[in-house]
Amino acid sequence: MTGFDGWMRSTQADAERALDQYLPAATALPLRLHAAMRYAVLDGGKRVRPLLVQAAAELFDAAPANVARAACAVEMIHAYSLVHDDMPCMDDDALRRGKPTVHVAYDEATALLVGDALQAQAFLVLAGMEIDPARAVAMLRLLADAAGSAGMCGGQAIDLASVGMDLSLAELEQMHRLKTGALLRASVLLGAWCGTTPDAAATAALEAYAAAIGLAFQVIDDVLDATADSATLGKTAGKDAADHKPTYVSILGLEPSRALAEKLRSDAHRAVLPFGDKARHLRDLADLIVQRKA
Amino acid sequence: MTGFDGWMRSTQADAERALDQYLPAATALPLRLHAAMRYAVLDGGKRVRPLLVQAAAELFDAAPANVARAACAVEMIHAYSLVHDDMPCMDDDALRRGKPTVHVAYDEATALLVGDALQAQAFLVLAGMEIDPARAVAMLRLLADAAGSAGMCGGQAIDLASVGMDLSLAELEQMHRLKTGALLRASVLLGAWCGTTPDAAATAALEAYAAAIGLAFQVIDDVLDATADSATLGKTAGKDAADHKPTYVSILGLEPSRALAEKLRSDAHRAVLPFGDKARHLRDLADLIVQRKA
Repeated sequence: MTGFDGWMRSTQADAERALDQYLPAATALPLRLHAAMRYAVLDGGKRVRPLLVQAAAELFDAAPANVARAACAVEMIHAYSLVHDDMPCMDDDALRRGKPTVHVAYDEATALLVGDALQAQAFLVLAGMEIDPARAVAMLRLLADAAGSAGMCGGQAIDLASVGMDLSLAELEQMHRLKTGALLRASVLLGAWCGTTPDAAATAALEAYAAAIGLAFQVIDDVLDATADSATLGKTAGKDAADHKPTYVSILGLEPSRALAEKLRSDAHRAVLPFGDKARHLRDLADLIVQRKA
Repeated sequence: MTGFDGWMRSTQADAERALDQYLPAATALPLRLHAAMRYAVLDGGKRVRPLLVQAAAELFDAAPANVARAACAVEMIHAYSLVHDDMPCMDDDALRRGKPTVHVAYDEATALLVGDALQAQAFLVLAGMEIDPARAVAMLRLLADAAGSAGMCGGQAIDLASVGMDLSLAELEQMHRLKTGALLRASVLLGAWCGTTPDAAATAALEAYAAAIGLAFQVIDDVLDATADSATLGKTAGKDAADHKPTYVSILGLEPSRALAEKLRSDAHRAVLPFGDKARHLRDLADLIVQRKA
């Protein structure tokens, strides 16, 4: 096990423990809602966002307890978006992370409420940080902005509107910058803001890094959707083509998409050069995002 | 027009202007999502929650700009819950505030995203207050708690589970304390916290007031659902009986429900006695909640 693998597993285990702690207890009423919230979040996923929070936090000597809360907050927003995305009125997907989706395992109304309650829980957990309150308010604004209509929800709305349409590459990038990129960016910045204040140059470096990995993440998602099988992905493969959704692969082709992802990976590396060795986990995460198989 | 009527109309108009300002502009991308968010929130409703925010704020000399943000935040949470409640997998309602519901006027996927984005927008707007940051964090926690699984979403989950069940009066109260009461309580406390810090006695008085009006609100909702027509309500009447939902009317009967609402109204009046004349709008709102016809 390389140093990065060990760090990744240990960070994923930390995230799992923190999520278990910061989700409502399975014994708290209403039982079925809380069981479904825990089902939606725990024991699944690569925890890419908590990994980014932790890796960015390492640059700024952040307090672990606040990092754990920030990691949980972004992961809860991500998890709620998956629950709602999978519902019949959206992507109508029965499989997620290799398990039945929430509306299949429970029912649609519960899935709707699970997503709604997870979003509120994310803000509740983040607001519980023990940190300078002015910093906390800035972090809550950042998360709300990344989650809302100028971020993730806005990207999903553009995605909905784009089914069966010919998007330009610029329009496709704009969609993904909001849909996936906004929350990945928030993960990096929230991790950093858990610690000492980044100066303008450090903030610019983090922004450039986040922009590159955000786009790379989606390019690789499209590549995997076109090339991997459902068992490997843990979700239904080939959905984009079946749904006539524009993707990097449908616009650029497969090999140029892979080349673009490689270019973005080296952009991400270059962006965090000023942080030197402290940024090694951010670099490793860029590699992970581009080289993953699922 | 009495003093209260004038105050109410002016406060409602202020809330409408503030909502218009703090919702994403209709000209901002993505256009359809933003149009639907504005459709869901603007030009409708009695604005009971903004009225409570304003009336409580008057006790503590709160800055109007912060009161406007708090009022918008609770109203956006309320509006999002209505959009999701009306969806086919929940109450499947086609009419709200006399207009087609969002999933009817737009589509289900858009309604889902409208609710999600409105919740994020509520936290974004509240986090923008110009106020002591420690106070702002406490207010954000209060709103998240009231909106989530320990509040509104939790109450809706109990409501879902109760269809066709025999609930005791205590179970029914618990459901409504979460489903409607938590956000009404948050409205009162957020309004108060916009101003000078309430002492323990004032906080206890506000809590007692909020508990009484929260319950009264739901008792009257049940009475109206059983007695008013859809045109008056602006939503489908008689739904609870048709859905075999337990209500105050089904458990207590019609006249005892009215008598309970009257008792709660006088409880609310008594709770705010210590505030003297400054609490007159809180008293008037208790009257409005119990005596409303829709």
